[in-house]
Amino acid sequence: MPIIAIINGPNLNLLGRREPGVYGALTLDDINARIQKRFPDVQFAFFQSNHEGELIDYIHDAWSRADGIVLNAGAYTHYSIALRDALAAVDIPAVEVHLSNVHARESFRHHSVIAPVCLGQIAGFGWQSYVLGVHAILDRIEQSA
Amino acid sequence: MPIIAIINGPNLNLLGRREPGVYGALTLDDINARIQKRFPDVQFAFFQSNHEGELIDYIHDAWSRADGIVLNAGAYTHYSIALRDALAAVDIPAVEVHLSNVHARESFRHHSVIAPVCLGQIAGFGWQSYVLGVHAILDRIEQSA
Amino acid sequence: MPIIAIINGPNLNLLGRREPGVYGALTLDDINARIQKRFPDVQFAFFQSNHEGELIDYIHDAWSRADGIVLNAGAYTHYSIALRDALAAVDIPAVEVHLSNVHARESFRHHSVIAPVCLGQIAGFGWQSYVLGVHAILDRIEQSA
Amino acid sequence: MPIIAIINGPNLNLLGRREPGVYGALTLDDINARIQKRFPDVQFAFFQSNHEGELIDYIHDAWSRADGIVLNAGAYTHYSIALRDALAAVDIPAVEVHLSNVHARESFRHHSVIAPVCLGQIAGFGWQSYVLGVHAILDRIEQSA
Amino acid sequence: MPIIAIINGPNLNLLGRREPGVYGALTLDDINARIQKRFPDVQFAFFQSNHEGELIDYIHDAWSRADGIVLNAGAYTHYSIALRDALAAVDIPAVEVHLSNVHARESFRHHSVIAPVCLGQIAGFGWQSYVLGVHAILDRIEQSA
Amino acid sequence: MPIIAIINGPNLNLLGRREPGVYGALTLDDINARIQKRFPDVQFAFFQSNHEGELIDYIHDAWSRADGIVLNAGAYTHYSIALRDALAAVDIPAVEVHLSNVHARESFRHHSVIAPVCLGQIAGFGWQSYVLGVHAILDRIEQSA
Amino acid sequence: MPIIAIINGPNLNLLGRREPGVYGALTLDDINARIQKRFPDVQFAFFQSNHEGELIDYIHDAWSRADGIVLNAGAYTHYSIALRDALAAVDIPAVEVHLSNVHARESFRHHSVIAPVCLGQIAGFGWQSYVLGVHAILDRIEQSA
Amino acid sequence: MPIIAIINGPNLNLLGRREPGVYGALTLDDINARIQKRFPDVQFAFFQSNHEGELIDYIHDAWSRADGIVLNAGAYTHYSIALRDALAAVDIPAVEVHLSNVHARESFRHHSVIAPVCLGQIAGFGWQSYVLGVHAILDRIEQSA
Amino acid sequence: MPIIAIINGPNLNLLGRREPGVYGALTLDDINARIQKRFPDVQFAFFQSNHEGELIDYIHDAWSRADGIVLNAGAYTHYSIALRDALAAVDIPAVEVHLSNVHARESFRHHSVIAPVCLGQIAGFGWQSYVLGVHAILDRIEQSA
Amino acid sequence: MPIIAIINGPNLNLLGRREPGVYGALTLDDINARIQKRFPDVQFAFFQSNHEGELIDYIHDAWSRADGIVLNAGAYTHYSIALRDALAAVDIPAVEVHLSNVHARESFRHHSVIAPVCLGQIAGFGWQSYVLGVHAILDRIEQSA
Amino acid sequence: MPIIAIINGPNLNLLGRREPGVYGALTLDDINARIQKRFPDVQFAFFQSNHEGELIDYIHDAWSRADGIVLNAGAYTHYSIALRDALAAVDIPAVEVHLSNVHARESFRHHSVIAPVCLGQIAGFGWQSYVLGVHAILDRIEQSA
Amino acid sequence: MPIIAIINGPNLNLLGRREPGVYGALTLDDINARIQKRFPDVQFAFFQSNHEGELIDYIHDAWSRADGIVLNAGAYTHYSIALRDALAAVDIPAVEVHLSNVHARESFRHHSVIAPVCLGQIAGFGWQSYVLGVHAILDRIEQSA
Repeated sequence: MPIIAIINGPNLNLLGRREPGVYGALTLDDINARIQKRFPDVQFAFFQSNHEGELIDYIHDAWSRADGIVLNAGAYTHYSIALRDALAAVDIPAVEVHLSNVHARESFRHHSVIAPVCLGQIAGFGWQSYVLGVHAILDRIEQSA
Repeated sequence: MPIIAIINGPNLNLLGRREPGVYGALTLDDINARIQKRFPDVQFAFFQSNHEGELIDYIHDAWSRADGIVLNAGAYTHYSIALRDALAAVDIPAVEVHLSNVHARESFRHHSVIAPVCLGQIAGFGWQSYVLGVHAILDRIEQSA
Repeated sequence: MPIIAIINGPNLNLLGRREPGVYGALTLDDINARIQKRFPDVQFAFFQSNHEGELIDYIHDAWSRADGIVLNAGAYTHYSIALRDALAAVDIPAVEVHLSNVHARESFRHHSVIAPVCLGQIAGFGWQSYVLGVHAILDRIEQSA
Repeated sequence: MPIIAIINGPNLNLLGRREPGVYGALTLDDINARIQKRFPDVQFAFFQSNHEGELIDYIHDAWSRADGIVLNAGAYTHYSIALRDALAAVDIPAVEVHLSNVHARESFRHHSVIAPVCLGQIAGFGWQSYVLGVHAILDRIEQSA
Repeated sequence: MPIIAIINGPNLNLLGRREPGVYGALTLDDINARIQKRFPDVQFAFFQSNHEGELIDYIHDAWSRADGIVLNAGAYTHYSIALRDALAAVDIPAVEVHLSNVHARESFRHHSVIAPVCLGQIAGFGWQSYVLGVHAILDRIEQSA
Repeated sequence: MPIIAIINGPNLNLLGRREPGVYGALTLDDINARIQKRFPDVQFAFFQSNHEGELIDYIHDAWSRADGIVLNAGAYTHYSIALRDALAAVDIPAVEVHLSNVHARESFRHHSVIAPVCLGQIAGFGWQSYVLGVHAILDRIEQSA
Repeated sequence: MPIIAIINGPNLNLLGRREPGVYGALTLDDINARIQKRFPDVQFAFFQSNHEGELIDYIHDAWSRADGIVLNAGAYTHYSIALRDALAAVDIPAVEVHLSNVHARESFRHHSVIAPVCLGQIAGFGWQSYVLGVHAILDRIEQSA
Repeated sequence: MPIIAIINGPNLNLLGRREPGVYGALTLDDINARIQKRFPDVQFAFFQSNHEGELIDYIHDAWSRADGIVLNAGAYTHYSIALRDALAAVDIPAVEVHLSNVHARESFRHHSVIAPVCLGQIAGFGWQSYVLGVHAILDRIEQSA
Repeated sequence: MPIIAIINGPNLNLLGRREPGVYGALTLDDINARIQKRFPDVQFAFFQSNHEGELIDYIHDAWSRADGIVLNAGAYTHYSIALRDALAAVDIPAVEVHLSNVHARESFRHHSVIAPVCLGQIAGFGWQSYVLGVHAILDRIEQSA
Repeated sequence: MPIIAIINGPNLNLLGRREPGVYGALTLDDINARIQKRFPDVQFAFFQSNHEGELIDYIHDAWSRADGIVLNAGAYTHYSIALRDALAAVDIPAVEVHLSNVHARESFRHHSVIAPVCLGQIAGFGWQSYVLGVHAILDRIEQSA
Repeated sequence: MPIIAIINGPNLNLLGRREPGVYGALTLDDINARIQKRFPDVQFAFFQSNHEGELIDYIHDAWSRADGIVLNAGAYTHYSIALRDALAAVDIPAVEVHLSNVHARESFRHHSVIAPVCLGQIAGFGWQSYVLGVHAILDRIEQSA
Repeated sequence: MPIIAIINGPNLNLLGRREPGVYGALTLDDINARIQKRFPDVQFAFFQSNHEGELIDYIHDAWSRADGIVLNAGAYTHYSIALRDALAAVDIPAVEVHLSNVHARESFRHHSVIAPVCLGQIAGFGWQSYVLGVHAILDRIEQSA
């Protein structure tokens, strides 16, 4: 049974309350529950933090515990080279996801410093972005198996 | 039964022959067959062209024929504002997909002029990028239903 | 009786259907009919294509057939150096026109690679931009006569 | 009978004397006379100043007196955000005109800070640019009537 | 009795010791005491942290507890999009303040990623910047009352 | 009794009439009256001009007459190095104020060429920006006393 | 007997008629005839198109038919990443040639998106650029033989 | 007896009072007196204004009255394209001068929009810059005689 | 006996495991042990954190405890202005070190926001960079003694 | 018998020893011998220097001695405006050549400050670049004859 | 009797032969003779070299021998930071001169890396630029005397 | 006994005389003597030149004579791609050193074109930078031994 870490960065704990027009009405718990329901045969490790350092620590720990990472780094996507280096350092396939279509928002959200060290990026599909990300990780695990 | 157009841009007809290290060993026909097999209940319209104008014409025609578009615009992704305007003009949900992780390649491939008028972007998962794109379109259709 | 080519580029075939808030409710045929009606003593050659190459071919052909060109190059305005070179190559006075005020839209629409080889640019007056463009061509023809 | 203000900015008082190769041999009075003659049923208010502040004052005053503005802001086109704000503040349709094709001259003349708050821009047709500008204003007045 | 959070970011705990020529001789406690003294009828919640994540957490918590925020984000002003998103997410009026005139220092201090989601910015008046910021918040609260 | 000059630049004479959504419904006279009322023990010299040169002249004259300057330079904020040099030349403390939050508007309004030679900048609090600016000047005068 | 494709892009069909001061008085047929005459032992495939898509199609077809490509991509040199990808995809040595010295013209002609995937670039020698390009291809074929 | 206009722009009326460390202790009248004394056989027309428009008007008037212009445009040097156009419009040799070495100050003072239409630029020699400028004009007049 | 703090930033806890080709096979403990062994007469305080805030806190604390700092800020080197300000605030000589030659890696690693407030930078010598850094600090302490 | 100078700039004396993967295994003497052998009826003047000044001196001397120049300026290609001016000053046709395809290497090698004053540029064909360059010079000499 | 070094950089030895339209018909010896004749009471040390290193050596030597330097660094003006540092290192007043108006030529000639360490810059007056430069040096020497 | 070349570039011969506040009071001979004294078991080859070409020649010669290079390229650090290529061409480990902390000076001194082809960079420690550089070279030699 594969283990996948679903890691959420800053302000995503406010989902459901924060700008629902942009981010939707589901809370992060709602989303996590839906992900688990959609993939009953996957073991998920859900984590959220507003702290760059805690996100790095968690990624380090995941090295020995998870088979894949689905990461929504929130605003850190655009400047946290430290998070990028954390992902590059650990040997786990990762997918970058975004709820909103970052390419259609302010120009400073078009660029990701993290995507280059991921398998790829999925942006714009609300909570389904996570589901698509899990699909992508499972495909990769299958190929490597 | 929903109708989804799978549109491929320049040089994607060479898949399987062109730089397999970057783009994989499957031909475009192989990929299309796999997509159809994965979604037996979807009617697909497959199209590929190296001509910017033909891609625009096809998108225009799709307006009255398709419920969604999965578009891999190839190199046109990075400069064809005409393709962007075509997508913006027609009233069909579209997803931008890429086989490779464009964010990890030459810097001129990091920017998409088309993504801002799509639902979102999926990049880096080989032929699975198309599958994830179809999932995203179906989710959208379902929500609108 | 002067001959003027009215050349329209990509997506302008969708006029009347495409984002009417930006581009107005008239179809391209409506506009062409109005232009003809406004200038009954001018012979017009109307052409539209979504293909950069066909637009170039048409401009080449116009060399021996037309006394002036009114060109709405659509999105090609902003990157088609090939269209620019086509206009520079043929010895016919040309005017660049736009339905919308491109200077008030996305910044990538502020710059024209084509305007420097035209007599001038007219932007922002809906279908009247074409009428003003024909006026400008006729003035030029008159001066040269 | 509509009232249209024809406003000219810095150095345009020298028309006919200044670089005739670029700006033509007509004086500003000649041009104004031709405009009046071409539109006998329009009442014109002609104004020229080399002073940014006087141009702003005049635009403010025009608010209660004119139905439209044709503005050749000369060099202020490229940096006078104050003029831009003046036009944006008053509720009169305005058209930016230029004698020469600014898009074919030094690159610092390609950009207008004023055009975004006008109906549109007309550049490159000598004194006819003003005539085309008046046509555009009249069309707009007619539509609003 | 309105509740206002006074939030200070990195290195502001060193006030009084750190580069007194730039930041003044008062400690943060001195400043907080002066603010309280100046506004005896306001309840203040004082907070300082060098941790981006703790600042975000605190802003989240303030949502249900404070009527306004006066924020000196220190160096985070210039790059913490995560802090910006935190402020944008919570529904509390906020004012950005700086002790020094950031516009007169190194060019990387001229730009704030946070100011666009605040009511406004006050910079350059030493500890009085906070006082002015509280005035601004109280005015806003009054208007909304 | 301290003397403070309240100087307003281009288009601010239109306050109350101009884009009330952005700038509020008060006229400049209303604002000046409120300032005077709020600070009955201060002598104010109110000045407004749309002319860059008159603003410079006035600042020069203020040198021997005023103890402080509160300046809303309007659009000149963003390009009038001449105004900046005028402020730098005279030996009077000055505060730059803005009605709207310039940092949340078009990017060309984010940069001030004048702020570096002021005590600081206050932006975004409507007519209260002036009040806060007067407070800041009075604090400075007090400190120097 | 080696087979070399001589491929010409947009507007090169006008050679001899188009700006002879820049491009010379020979037609494209004249040039092709001279190339053939200079290399009687080489089989040439001459192709010209103004259509980006046709040029891509032709390069794809050349894969199984030609031993080398001499490409003058005209204006597409500067923006057609699709052409670049076409050349990178096929396994044929290619040389980029230009009639004029592009490095001495407008700055937007200094940069080639295609040259990085060619053996090299030859620019500035009129029709001799093609001859030099054929020499370079033959040298390469010889080395590989 | 040649006539030379010595034209000074914004804030130069404050010379002797304004930042003497940068601009020296002489007043503008002192400088003008020294210039006249150094060149007793030249008739000078001295002019200073803080108003861009007045400077333009004066340059226009000088056309029929002066044989040369020595211009210190102050801060307008860096952005007044209107002044540049005024100089380009009149047929009088002009020299740009600066008291301070603008190339050693803030980077926005390194660039002159006016120098390209002058004979040349002289910067950094205090009031001697004017003297050197007059020398340069006299040399030019002599050559043309 | 001098006290030197050896401070390591994000991801350096993974040394020995993380990309050994780039960062070498030694763990951070190995490196620290070698440093201590090389300088038996120095008292070291070793610290590592992935948290920007903890690094700032530690530098603040070091003010009263350490005579010098050797800092490898990892990825924070390139964007943490907060760390820069922390170093600038405390009165301890500091040296920036890097294991790898950052100047030979991605361009975003060429720039350090921290180096300007250090004595200097040492990059590219593996764990010896720390040794060289300690030498530099000891030299400085000696000079000041 | 025409005289052609073959001029090589910095580090080209190391050919055969220096990065043979990039520059090939031939020494500069080998290349010069091959050039002479290929063109037995041309008199060559071979020169190499690592000194910018000597290269300039040599080009000056060539003015009276050579009919053409083939120049591989090595790294000076990218910044020696002095070399550019030397070539522009002497009245001899010159061709810029490069062994490697500079357009496919580091971006700072894509730009040549020298090519604009040459007939053209030939890059990427190893020692054959020189041969092609000599061909180009001979063609030019023939045309002028 | 003051000693002034007149130092000329690359390609200035060709004066009179090189592009006389830009640089005039006088040789460098002619110019030097005229300078000496104009200032019979000054002892000049004339030097020209195309070698950056020799120019630096000469400036170093001038330290103990000359009272001032008039430097026309030719193309080195725009990139030789080494020359700049040489001038900054020696304690002699220096003036940068240019024959042509560099501000009216290619944009890469607008910027001087040397001017910031000179007293000032004089450009555009042909050989008179040197004369004006000597005047400026003499004025400075007089002031210091 | 290892042989290390200590190579100094332009203006470093003036050490002790040149801006002692920036570069210290030691002459280059003093520094070299200290280096030799500190490493009695190393054979040093000391070289200094202001000539870019001589520095390149010396590096070439060092190839067969030295085991390592410590290079302070002075101002050439920032633009001499020719020096960079020289270092890349020879097969000797090199370290870039600077007396001053270049990262804390003018922004054009922050970038090194040479560091990417060195083992690393050491900047800011006065003459100790050389000592640290020799240490680094010796460590490297030891590792390779």
